[in-house]
Amino acid sequence: MAGQTPKPLVGLVVGDPAGIGPELAARLAADSMVADAVRLLIVGDRRIFDRGAEIAGTHTVVTPVREDELPHVSPGQHSFLDLPSIDPATVVTGRAGKPGGASALANFRKALDLGAERRVDAVCYTPFNKSAMRKSYSNYEDEVSFSAEHLGLPVTDIAEFNIQPRVWSARVTSHVPLSRVASLLTVPAILNRIVLTDRAMRTAGHESRRIAVAGLNPHAGDEGNFGREEIDVIGPAVEAARARGFHCSGPYSPDTVYVRARAGEFDAVLTMYHDQGQIAMKLMGFFEGVVYFAGLPFPLTTPAHGTAYEISGQGKADIGANRAAVLLAGRMAGRTVGEPLAVA
Amino acid sequence: MAGQTPKPLVGLVVGDPAGIGPELAARLAADSMVADAVRLLIVGDRRIFDRGAEIAGTHTVVTPVREDELPHVSPGQHSFLDLPSIDPATVVTGRAGKPGGASALANFRKALDLGAERRVDAVCYTPFNKSAMRKSYSNYEDEVSFSAEHLGLPVTDIAEFNIQPRVWSARVTSHVPLSRVASLLTVPAILNRIVLTDRAMRTAGHESRRIAVAGLNPHAGDEGNFGREEIDVIGPAVEAARARGFHCSGPYSPDTVYVRARAGEFDAVLTMYHDQGQIAMKLMGFFEGVVYFAGLPFPLTTPAHGTAYEISGQGKADIGANRAAVLLAGRMAGRTVGEPLAVA
Repeated sequence: MAGQTPKPLVGLVVGDPAGIGPELAARLAADSMVADAVRLLIVGDRRIFDRGAEIAGTHTVVTPVREDELPHVSPGQHSFLDLPSIDPATVVTGRAGKPGGASALANFRKALDLGAERRVDAVCYTPFNKSAMRKSYSNYEDEVSFSAEHLGLPVTDIAEFNIQPRVWSARVTSHVPLSRVASLLTVPAILNRIVLTDRAMRTAGHESRRIAVAGLNPHAGDEGNFGREEIDVIGPAVEAARARGFHCSGPYSPDTVYVRARAGEFDAVLTMYHDQGQIAMKLMGFFEGVVYFAGLPFPLTTPAHGTAYEISGQGKADIGANRAAVLLAGRMAGRTVGEPLAVA
Repeated sequence: MAGQTPKPLVGLVVGDPAGIGPELAARLAADSMVADAVRLLIVGDRRIFDRGAEIAGTHTVVTPVREDELPHVSPGQHSFLDLPSIDPATVVTGRAGKPGGASALANFRKALDLGAERRVDAVCYTPFNKSAMRKSYSNYEDEVSFSAEHLGLPVTDIAEFNIQPRVWSARVTSHVPLSRVASLLTVPAILNRIVLTDRAMRTAGHESRRIAVAGLNPHAGDEGNFGREEIDVIGPAVEAARARGFHCSGPYSPDTVYVRARAGEFDAVLTMYHDQGQIAMKLMGFFEGVVYFAGLPFPLTTPAHGTAYEISGQGKADIGANRAAVLLAGRMAGRTVGEPLAVA
């Protein structure tokens, strides 16, 4: 290691064992782009991973390590932290089950701990199945609230980004009833998300961070005819952010802002509610998107797609989005985030 | 005409003269697919149309007619109803102006009258510019409310559909603040839109009318965790429609229902609010979509795109969506709508 910075160590959580996670993990371990950029520490039940390798037809050497050896493993080599957490015979491929949910949760908890203890530089997970996880832990709401709860952080500190190859997407509100969205929009809440978006993109190495802020109402309220949030809240937040030097603009009509971003006019879109962004991002590439969670002490990423039960076990799952998630985690690992730079 | 049904007579309104409308009208008059399917009655200022033909480089014979000759014009031939409503020198290409708005409004009013009097079989308009129209008529809200007002119909009778080549889209609420959407959802309102969607698609000749009903909340409420409208209102409306024989299902998660429709699982999506559908439809093909207004005594259509000021006057506007709008108007013209058929 003398004279050379080791590649970032990315904890790769094996997600739901009934889905495509195990075969994705095996193929990521065998992927040359991944090996060029990061060292993986695969966190899961070794028998489940080996079954995934069999499905994927890969034969990669992945060295077992003990937790107390971390992070002092040889650079340039993937390793495995074995957590025997499930009887492999209980896994029914393509079906959400309690043992699978418990296994994914055990792997996830361990990886969050490794990240918090700086034993890994970043964490990425292959897809979870929420209903399987709830069978094992009924309070499981989503990855944001679980991570916050497990690490003892305020849930509002954590922001979820959806990333397509060309467009980043963040939101001010998330898993709340649509009827409550308008009442949750405040100047500080929107400003906070603009700052976080700029910071996250900077950490990922993006020079250009043109953030488009979506309106809330049809045609962005049509000058107050169909709602006043654009005039009373969103517009002032955009102005406040611009005054602080951020490269943002809006509020824009929600139904064309993604068309414009896709065409290259913006690098990121800040949406006011979950589906405003998710409808667009899923249409723009269901199997290409990456999710990134900001606000934890380490980068956390995952592919935007799910467990794909309908094709799991067949060895035909596309690793594109999960590879992009691993590479993003590696790129962000160890970079100082700090306070946002003012942009002239 | 003996022994042969004449092609439908479609009133083609020349929209905003500062946009791509005049050149689109000229190219539609010169288009063989249009001529094979319908006879156009172009409604506008002849000098504006002739200027559009010059821009488009077309030289189609379009016979002038007087209003009192309608609908007795020769079959298989386009005709022109000249409404000198504007000094052509006042038109600034690419800019919304009051004279242009007044001209588009005059053409629109006349075409609505012609439709109501059964002097034309259907109406289609090249793009309007709402802000130009408001400069001339400050009460102009949108095409739905203007048509209702002009023809003396209840505005709630008129439903707007957005149509992509593969997917129809309708909505329960439209130009209202997002914060009011939830309170406007009722079982009768949703059921009404399901019935109208089925009827409109039947009138357009669609054998398969599988209607997907979107939920309101993220993940369709996630079993009540993020809102109850799916359980309390939308689900019961879907059940009521199914009990009446309609081929509909849902409520579905709003962020994947269009991905599924695009893949062929559904023929139509009923959305709960404006942007739920518009974000998707615009991403699926900004220059392919058609808008159809149901509930008038005649079919009314237009392309989903606008005046495209940035390219107007250059002769490069794509007629695809406007042609599709003309052909749809012709296809629906004169077909008996009647009560919805029960589907077994």
